[in-house]
Amino acid sequence: MTGIVRHNGHFEWDGVHRLAYKEEGTHFKQVTRQVLSKAFPGLFAELRYFEVAPGGHSTLERHEHAHLVLIGRGGGHCLVGGEVSAVTPLDAVIIPPQTWHQFRATGTEPLGFFCVVARERDRPQLPSSEDLEALSADPAIKDFIRV
Amino acid sequence: MTGIVRHNGHFEWDGVHRLAYKEEGTHFKQVTRQVLSKAFPGLFAELRYFEVAPGGHSTLERHEHAHLVLIGRGGGHCLVGGEVSAVTPLDAVIIPPQTWHQFRATGTEPLGFFCVVARERDRPQLPSSEDLEALSADPAIKDFIRV
Repeated sequence: MTGIVRHNGHFEWDGVHRLAYKEEGTHFKQVTRQVLSKAFPGLFAELRYFEVAPGGHSTLERHEHAHLVLIGRGGGHCLVGGEVSAVTPLDAVIIPPQTWHQFRATGTEPLGFFCVVARERDRPQLPSSEDLEALSADPAIKDFIRV
Repeated sequence: MTGIVRHNGHFEWDGVHRLAYKEEGTHFKQVTRQVLSKAFPGLFAELRYFEVAPGGHSTLERHEHAHLVLIGRGGGHCLVGGEVSAVTPLDAVIIPPQTWHQFRATGTEPLGFFCVVARERDRPQLPSSEDLEALSADPAIKDFIRV
């Protein structure tokens, strides 16, 4: 047991498969998921790497569990709560409980990011039409979100 | 609340101070600590960035809580359990509960790594003389560890 999950270049790791972002749904576009900690299922948390292809986006969602995110490659924008921000490598993004969030690869590069979550966590909630209306009260958010 | 902790170059972040690795002790050498998630103290976990200067090392220790580590810059070696391994950027290092571990910047570069821990966690245990004797049964480990 070395504990090492070896990066083998191009944001891939030995023994880690590139998976679909989620098993089902149409609320996201061109996102892959790799679970770097998958050989250690009993830990308090999971370390994942997500990559959004140019033009793609993660799901607009919120949930009780928090995310600790570290941008790994490329760039793009994210919504966290009431703000849309540009992100570049080594920026950290903290997503507190019950905070609407979405990542988009808005440029010509992919947006790759590491994301730690608690192993035991609630299911994400999608926005209702009322939620979308409230979010869209801010023109910058209205313009940004993809559902 | 943007959630963004902005990297401002050279592995430093806006509003985040470079701190001593630990408040006290002599079981480590030339290590700094930055708590990227410090503005979000209520989360389930903390995101920290540690940097070990060339020739330095973290404490040889174990504890009940786990570490999820991502190597960020430079290189070096780490002990996890019964193995000493070289590490380079983007390698992940998973340190399960009660596993002896130590990081050393063994080359001419610093060794920088991100480390996620649970907010509520036990205090690290230092090795007893019996522990050191047991670890030193393996010549590679005996050669590597610094106490």
